Amino acid sequence: MNVFVVQEIVSLDWSIHKPCPMNTHRLEPLLNPASIAIVGASNHPARIGGMPLAHLTRFGYAGRIYPINPKYGEVFGLRCWPDIEALPEAPDLAVLAIAAPDVLPMLRRCVAKGVRAVIVYAAGFAEEGAQGAALQAELQAYVAGTDLVVAGPNAMGFANLNTQAHTNFASVFNTAPMQSGSGSVSLLTQSGNVCAAVYAIARRLDLGFSHFINTGNEACVDFAQYLEYLAQDAATEVCMGYVEELRDGPRFMAAAEAFARRDKLLILYKAGETDKGSEAVRSHTSALAGDQAVYRAAFRQLNIIQSHDFVQMAQLAHLAGYRHRSAGRRVAIITISGALGAILADKFLGAGLDVPTLPQALQDQLRAGIPDYGMVSNPVDVTGNVVNDPGFVRTALQALAQSDAVDCVLVYAPGYLLDRMAGDLCAVSAAYPRLFVAIDTGAATTREQLRAGGVPVFDDIGVATAALAPFLLWQERRRRNRWLDLRHGALPAQAALPASLDEHRCKQLLAGHGLPEVRERVARTADEATAAADAIGYPVVLKVLSPDIAHKTEAGGVRLHLAGAQQVREAFAQIMASSRDYAPQARIAGVLVGAMEAGVAELIVGATRDPVFGMALTVGLGGVLTELYQDVSQRLLPVDEAMAREMLAELKAFPLLTGYRGRPLADVDAACAAIAAFSRAVLALGAHVDEVEVNPLLVKQVGQGVRMLDALVIPSGH
Amino acid sequence: MNVFVVQEIVSLDWSIHKPCPMNTHRLEPLLNPASIAIVGASNHPARIGGMPLAHLTRFGYAGRIYPINPKYGEVFGLRCWPDIEALPEAPDLAVLAIAAPDVLPMLRRCVAKGVRAVIVYAAGFAEEGAQGAALQAELQAYVAGTDLVVAGPNAMGFANLNTQAHTNFASVFNTAPMQSGSGSVSLLTQSGNVCAAVYAIARRLDLGFSHFINTGNEACVDFAQYLEYLAQDAATEVCMGYVEELRDGPRFMAAAEAFARRDKLLILYKAGETDKGSEAVRSHTSALAGDQAVYRAAFRQLNIIQSHDFVQMAQLAHLAGYRHRSAGRRVAIITISGALGAILADKFLGAGLDVPTLPQALQDQLRAGIPDYGMVSNPVDVTGNVVNDPGFVRTALQALAQSDAVDCVLVYAPGYLLDRMAGDLCAVSAAYPRLFVAIDTGAATTREQLRAGGVPVFDDIGVATAALAPFLLWQERRRRNRWLDLRHGALPAQAALPASLDEHRCKQLLAGHGLPEVRERVARTADEATAAADAIGYPVVLKVLSPDIAHKTEAGGVRLHLAGAQQVREAFAQIMASSRDYAPQARIAGVLVGAMEAGVAELIVGATRDPVFGMALTVGLGGVLTELYQDVSQRLLPVDEAMAREMLAELKAFPLLTGYRGRPLADVDAACAAIAAFSRAVLALGAHVDEVEVNPLLVKQVGQGVRMLDALVIPSGH
Repeated sequence: MNVFVVQEIVSLDWSIHKPCPMNTHRLEPLLNPASIAIVGASNHPARIGGMPLAHLTRFGYAGRIYPINPKYGEVFGLRCWPDIEALPEAPDLAVLAIAAPDVLPMLRRCVAKGVRAVIVYAAGFAEEGAQGAALQAELQAYVAGTDLVVAGPNAMGFANLNTQAHTNFASVFNTAPMQSGSGSVSLLTQSGNVCAAVYAIARRLDLGFSHFINTGNEACVDFAQYLEYLAQDAATEVCMGYVEELRDGPRFMAAAEAFARRDKLLILYKAGETDKGSEAVRSHTSALAGDQAVYRAAFRQLNIIQSHDFVQMAQLAHLAGYRHRSAGRRVAIITISGALGAILADKFLGAGLDVPTLPQALQDQLRAGIPDYGMVSNPVDVTGNVVNDPGFVRTALQALAQSDAVDCVLVYAPGYLLDRMAGDLCAVSAAYPRLFVAIDTGAATTREQLRAGGVPVFDDIGVATAALAPFLLWQERRRRNRWLDLRHGALPAQAALPASLDEHRCKQLLAGHGLPEVRERVARTADEATAAADAIGYPVVLKVLSPDIAHKTEAGGVRLHLAGAQQVREAFAQIMASSRDYAPQARIAGVLVGAMEAGVAELIVGATRDPVFGMALTVGLGGVLTELYQDVSQRLLPVDEAMAREMLAELKAFPLLTGYRGRPLADVDAACAAIAAFSRAVLALGAHVDEVEVNPLLVKQVGQGVRMLDALVIPSGH
Repeated sequence: MNVFVVQEIVSLDWSIHKPCPMNTHRLEPLLNPASIAIVGASNHPARIGGMPLAHLTRFGYAGRIYPINPKYGEVFGLRCWPDIEALPEAPDLAVLAIAAPDVLPMLRRCVAKGVRAVIVYAAGFAEEGAQGAALQAELQAYVAGTDLVVAGPNAMGFANLNTQAHTNFASVFNTAPMQSGSGSVSLLTQSGNVCAAVYAIARRLDLGFSHFINTGNEACVDFAQYLEYLAQDAATEVCMGYVEELRDGPRFMAAAEAFARRDKLLILYKAGETDKGSEAVRSHTSALAGDQAVYRAAFRQLNIIQSHDFVQMAQLAHLAGYRHRSAGRRVAIITISGALGAILADKFLGAGLDVPTLPQALQDQLRAGIPDYGMVSNPVDVTGNVVNDPGFVRTALQALAQSDAVDCVLVYAPGYLLDRMAGDLCAVSAAYPRLFVAIDTGAATTREQLRAGGVPVFDDIGVATAALAPFLLWQERRRRNRWLDLRHGALPAQAALPASLDEHRCKQLLAGHGLPEVRERVARTADEATAAADAIGYPVVLKVLSPDIAHKTEAGGVRLHLAGAQQVREAFAQIMASSRDYAPQARIAGVLVGAMEAGVAELIVGATRDPVFGMALTVGLGGVLTELYQDVSQRLLPVDEAMAREMLAELKAFPLLTGYRGRPLADVDAACAAIAAFSRAVLALGAHVDEVEVNPLLVKQVGQGVRMLDALVIPSGH
């Protein structure tokens, strides 16, 4: 397994030797305290009142430590104080290692003393039934009236590994290898055990940490606020997080955006991939797992790397140190084996990277040093012959570093060969800003040299792919993520909703924002219906118009392909009779008479309100199979035409719009324009609606546009 | 990273201390030679003529070694012989470290000397253009007339790690940690570099090896023959393989079956997951990558675990040591954290395992030792409280070991807690045959104790899932794989094909094997057509009948929903006219008049000949979306009704047959019977056909059966 040392991270703009700029965030006394009181201090290093003291003294915290317990005169060689009132100063932070019922009275005393922040270890709050929830509500109500910052309850506590401010009872600090020197990786989780597990795994890889944070019940400080702190924290270059539920979506999004704007890497594990998992999470924290698809969409739009693997998270955190190197998805693969080149190409393509065929001029340059049976197209198989011509290695690497046809160069060679190439790799890496990466499944002795030279080294193809692919895609996306700006664009004027929302009014509402209507008229009588049909032109469609009938086909309220006035007249009578039979109480305004339109495909375009992220837009092909195959694309609003195009292109069924198997080309431009108009409409409707849907949106042949065939607007609170 | 030692493997029924039974396979002198000559011996340990000698002497091969080179009197402290003729005996094996043009003459001298087997290192054969291919053909032709066993050419050579018979020039043996003691894992690859890479990775995990085999160009001995040897090899308990192309499908299948029947684990990496990868493989070995889907089907049916990750392969090889423990897909998860339990449940469910809710009685037993805020349903969260009641751990583990509701118990606890539970885990594991597995992301000190006690330990959730899931599914499948017997069933009598195969004759052919026809008649005139329609009953379908018109709809040769005699008459005339316009040269026999049938869904059922595995059967829902979503299931023949049911259930669109969203239930039983009948029909047609397809097979409502609406039989060679 790789041993990653933080010293290799090339982009550090801070160090333990120069003082960090003071963070003005209100969590500063919580996460970077100058003095710490431990209320309920114990002499026993395995007790929750003893462990933080054991850590603080063992790891050499330089701030002031105040153990508090009337039973002791001294603990861990420190003077022990009888109570908080006796302290010679108001400490920045008080850690409460006391039982739940004692917490609130102690908070009052902390406030009286002038303590700035408190960590509550105790369980027995919202995670434990109605009584605990009431206790937590009481705590929240009290704290809301103070300036006190309260972490937890039901939290394992924190560690600031750059100051050794250990305010936790995590035994992982006793067993994981100690960190030497400073670190730039922060860990932020909604589970203490996950925090400890990820820390242990990351320390096996020798990752250097800044903050170790687990949020507990988040009664007063939630995930988003910690994230906000870390975005402003000069020491933190990357954050690995574990999320079960986000309580403050907008604040979370702002914090994530701050990460993105500062080129800091944010990697989040969102719990609840399957229903079974979600069930366990609910039992665990009484948190309702949000909709996974919306999380995926939101994370992508916020440049957050989503991970479902602790080792991958740690490897990504390591790669963050190379994030200022020029890189992207187009990878050149250099091996000494056609088979290994093929395996790598398979893996990379499967993970969403490109392995482009190299330009002919570059191939010619490479061919100069590669025998006929080697490959130069990409993967590049330099063959074992490279042993005999080491000078060629540097030439080849330079040519690749200078080429604008690739973004990243990966070298996979057995250890002894990698060792021979290490000098050249480091020299070229130093001379060019391009990212070079190495894989060594053997036992290369030059790993540290390579890493110090800016070349990350992986010791397995699978691990390398799992880390490199999201990192390179992140590199690419952060250069061209327009959505972060788009989301701050001016909101359309908020429009009020009409009182009644039948199909016709829904369509008119959306048409007002630029969504193309079908030629259509309301008809209250058979005469009006035939007049409308004459005006529109045959064939026509008749549909019952009622705000109370949602399932028109089921009600016998839809007739298609009506070719003349007599058919329209008969259809009108039948629709009225069937609909009254189906729903005797329904208000029936008449029928909609519409042109019978033909097209290439039908889309469903919908927006639903997510409790965390707000309105999310979903696009898919219409029909039952789309649902079975879950072939949809989702984005948070706003969505512009370019994003709409990306969404359509993500659909597996997209070829149905682009001439698949001799089908006519669909008007994709018009579809994109309509999706963007839909986004504007939903933003304009704002808080008035919970759900808006156009289904189907008929996409006609190229040049002929799109038509809303049906639409639905559900006012908020319905 | 885990350190796996071979001594832990509990199922060894052999050891280095008792002599292995002699393998009577013809590859024995190649892979277990008693004497080895190195032709082209060198004194230099980095040369291909020196490295095998360096290995043989360093690792202590006990057989007789004969370096051959007229230039030297001694190499590596061994007497060097001037030529093969000078040797005092005919060696079992000669290793040829000489150039391609010198190989054939040397083979003749080996035969003359009585050598039994030869390894050819030299490149410059089929992998290098026409001239090399000719040289290889010459070699093959010569060897075919002898009893000589020839490995390679273009091979890196072998290692028998139980006898230290090193006949390779693989530098990995200089760098990878040396194996202490005997091993039971064999490695068989179609690439020398992959062989070395996997060996290096597996040795990092301290896996104990038996054979190291890479096959080179397979001019005389192919992958399947090596596999056959390993199936018979008493030392080999598990084989990790890497396949680019299988040259002898039937032999491979027989060897894989031998592995399955002996409960040996076979894990194969099939190259070419993507087109790009396949391209590189082709360039590499001039091998045509087989169809990936057929490989997947074949591997599953042969109980082969398919892997695309070297580390996963090594972990699976380790797990093979626990394969005689009772295990299966139903896993009980024991943690001290709700969050980690949820994460594990997510991972396992995503990988195809079950995490069943435990029976109430078992939950009650567990609840006795688990506080209210812990979970007992599965995942089981014993909470940190378990520290205070260690006696409960054994009670709980015993209850799980005795339950028939779970097949495997996974314990995930921080290292220090796992250490406290280790004694109980080992005791229960010793008392019951059930598989217990542990994950430790910390630094447990009892890992070796646990493994020795029959409990594998993983140090990461991702790695554990990747290895455990296929292993448990393999455990389950090997107990109920009926196909291995089915494939030896009596073949149906081979039927000759009719001379001309129009739609009607294709259907009749298949109907003869039990596939339900639609009521249908051939009509050559309009009168015959109306008579047929009258007899069948309206509405009817008319389709042009011609062996020369494949795309009947395109030709204007199909008319549906014909409700009376007059419509049939008109349709007949139109079809004849359109079809003659469309294809003036076509032989047109008339039309097919068929009942207009309605159903719930349409299936496509097809069989195509794979060059390696023979006839493979594919099932999917009809229509263009099935193609886009690649929603098909594939199996090698024969397929019986139970297998057909599995295939249908694998389709994502399967709910369309089982009442999805209020649709009528389809006659799935009849569909399965028809698929099994189709399998019998294809087997009966045997070598006469290359492709058979029923498309669509209409599936009607439950109780109403299925109907072939169209069928196609393509004779072989067309």
